[in-house]
Amino acid sequence: MTAYQPGLHLIGEADSPNLTKLSDASLFKVLVDELVAHHGLTKVGEVYHSFHEAGFTAAVCLTESHLSVHTWPEYGKVTFDVFLSNFKRNNDITTQSMFDSIAQYFEASLMHKTELRR
Amino acid sequence: MTAYQPGLHLIGEADSPNLTKLSDASLFKVLVDELVAHHGLTKVGEVYHSFHEAGFTAAVCLTESHLSVHTWPEYGKVTFDVFLSNFKRNNDITTQSMFDSIAQYFEASLMHKTELRR
Repeated sequence: MTAYQPGLHLIGEADSPNLTKLSDASLFKVLVDELVAHHGLTKVGEVYHSFHEAGFTAAVCLTESHLSVHTWPEYGKVTFDVFLSNFKRNNDITTQSMFDSIAQYFEASLMHKTELRR
Repeated sequence: MTAYQPGLHLIGEADSPNLTKLSDASLFKVLVDELVAHHGLTKVGEVYHSFHEAGFTAAVCLTESHLSVHTWPEYGKVTFDVFLSNFKRNNDITTQSMFDSIAQYFEASLMHKTELRR
């Protein structure tokens, strides 16, 4: 057995001007499903929870780990993270691409990003 | 409306000698449900996915954000994180306590921990 190959975990916080996207979990699910298919990942479970007249929380579990999003339309903010393991293949480029796609989706500005190897 | 109050996100990686706890998602769910009740949090959705003859992935969404766990019994490793917002009250002490409880549950050693304010 090869040694454990730490994955890349990208963690972001940003402002977003798009109140529709900050409020509509079903739109975000379309994006996630497209990204999962495009990158050949495997979804094993998901939670999308919409708060009353507010934002939503999503967590999508993958065989390759997970991504999560919390939106705050009342503050014009979103926090999100993407963590893909490198168990069967190196997913670093995919992790970065998915993170960027989510940031682009929310038209993120004033973004702060943390990179962890774990 | 008050300004956005960033929450505390604690992110850990550790070794664990307990192959049963690294393998059994249902045992971990008991812990999480106890912690959620004890700390007066509100669960809004969850994913527990067990891999064939391997570890499990869990993501539990709360009105206060989420926690996630990925276990690797074949490597004796676990990665986990707890993120609680401070929207309606300051949850920093709860975040720390839940993180410590999960580490203790897995008998974590050689732990690396990252603290993010987001």
